[in-house]
Amino acid sequence: MTRADIAIIGTGPAGLEAALTAKNRNKSILLFGSLNLSNKMQVIDHPITNYLGLKNVTGKEMAQAFRDQIKDAGITITEQKVTAVYAMGTYFTLQLSNGEDAEAETVILAAGVTAGRPYAGESEFLGRGVSYCATCDAPLYKGKKVIVIAGSAEEEAEADFLGEVCSEVTYIPLYASTPTFTHSNITAVREKPLAITGTMKAQALKTDQSIIEADCIFILREAQFPGQLVPGLTTEGAAVIADRGMRTNIPGLFAAGDIAGLPYQFIKSAGEGNIAAISAAAYLDQKKREADSRK
Amino acid sequence: MTRADIAIIGTGPAGLEAALTAKNRNKSILLFGSLNLSNKMQVIDHPITNYLGLKNVTGKEMAQAFRDQIKDAGITITEQKVTAVYAMGTYFTLQLSNGEDAEAETVILAAGVTAGRPYAGESEFLGRGVSYCATCDAPLYKGKKVIVIAGSAEEEAEADFLGEVCSEVTYIPLYASTPTFTHSNITAVREKPLAITGTMKAQALKTDQSIIEADCIFILREAQFPGQLVPGLTTEGAAVIADRGMRTNIPGLFAAGDIAGLPYQFIKSAGEGNIAAISAAAYLDQKKREADSRK
Repeated sequence: MTRADIAIIGTGPAGLEAALTAKNRNKSILLFGSLNLSNKMQVIDHPITNYLGLKNVTGKEMAQAFRDQIKDAGITITEQKVTAVYAMGTYFTLQLSNGEDAEAETVILAAGVTAGRPYAGESEFLGRGVSYCATCDAPLYKGKKVIVIAGSAEEEAEADFLGEVCSEVTYIPLYASTPTFTHSNITAVREKPLAITGTMKAQALKTDQSIIEADCIFILREAQFPGQLVPGLTTEGAAVIADRGMRTNIPGLFAAGDIAGLPYQFIKSAGEGNIAAISAAAYLDQKKREADSRK
Repeated sequence: MTRADIAIIGTGPAGLEAALTAKNRNKSILLFGSLNLSNKMQVIDHPITNYLGLKNVTGKEMAQAFRDQIKDAGITITEQKVTAVYAMGTYFTLQLSNGEDAEAETVILAAGVTAGRPYAGESEFLGRGVSYCATCDAPLYKGKKVIVIAGSAEEEAEADFLGEVCSEVTYIPLYASTPTFTHSNITAVREKPLAITGTMKAQALKTDQSIIEADCIFILREAQFPGQLVPGLTTEGAAVIADRGMRTNIPGLFAAGDIAGLPYQFIKSAGEGNIAAISAAAYLDQKKREADSRK
């Protein structure tokens, strides 16, 4: 497996700016995200009036300008969600939503922020009937009953994949549009998830209206809670703790944009992406100097 | 005197973005700088490849885009240098290079960075034969001999004003172009300033080639050292110490861009300008709530 210098998780302004700057510094990158760039950006249909450099653009126009600039710079987006990041000591392993792994010397977390907090029981049962990755864990639930809690319409394809493998899928959309599926064993229900219950493993989802039994509850948020994405990462509420150099408590791991805390502003995210990439490049260069001096 | 909610010092990306964001937050602003925006930006004639939103622009093109956007937002630039900022407790007084004062509830320092460090004797003799403001202090040196150390060609006008008032002006340009003056009592010399010497007050400038006697040495840098601009401000080297919210050690005083430390990158500066403006708005709102609760 080729190991990138810098893996960048997220294609909002923080991730894109980190990619531009990392490329400027001659570092190899893996940029994980969506060609859509950012749902948060796409839904803004009024003019954004305080992004210095882009005058009164809508979110869609901003995304188009960014996409064009990234393409022009020869940067490609790998359309995979990263479901977990493991610090291996001298490098990082990233678990992808297609079930494969990727490796990188350093990681920049720029995956955005999810409102709210984990459901009761979610952290407790993670890996025991709670999963963040349909493709990774579907085989474990062949012929079983599962629930999908979906943060965006993009998860309908994941539900369809589960529909293929599992006996029954209950789909809970947390977004407004009406979900559509190709498999008839998928049922959408509009209930508000409250808690995951069980004993040795998760057995049911309690909602505001009912208790739904299942062998696994797949929680597919747009952005995962950072502490769950990276075991051992220091967080405060929804935010990763980072210093002015966007360094986290894990050496080689950096954060930028909404995931690194307020204010949630596009230009702030871009600025932090720049800082994170420069800190990552400095970290890589320092590691190289140390390796050279040991030769 | 009208007192602005936020005084912004500097018209590079940090200052301009702070102005856009402060305006978004309905705060009244005073933006001090140059219509030229930033000499550092103007001299870049290769494409800037990592400012997300502006694809491969030269510094001049970037400045033009920014100027256009600011104008469109109804923001005006006050073409004055700020030579000192005094924290008055509940507000700030700013000393301007035209000899006037301005007042603001909060201040964002975005004045850029000056390479190097103060000359030996500079801090010691400040206010006693060392000045940062020709217009303010020229009357004190009527008929006397003065020296001007000039960081940019813009200071030639200041020297001309001193030529009118003083008997003799020695002008030391720290830039490449040949200075021109309308007054014949101004002599340009290309020497490297080393130290300011004197006893009770400054009496001479020691250079790499000579010792030049004078009653006052005017040091007109593009960006002042922050600790000299704001008495009591905590700095480290050339940088103001700020937290992730761009708050300095002085309540109500914020910093953004190069003045707040490395990396010196346009998009990082813009991002910090955004954060500083939001922190300043939050500070103002908090102050207002406290005042209301005392009524």
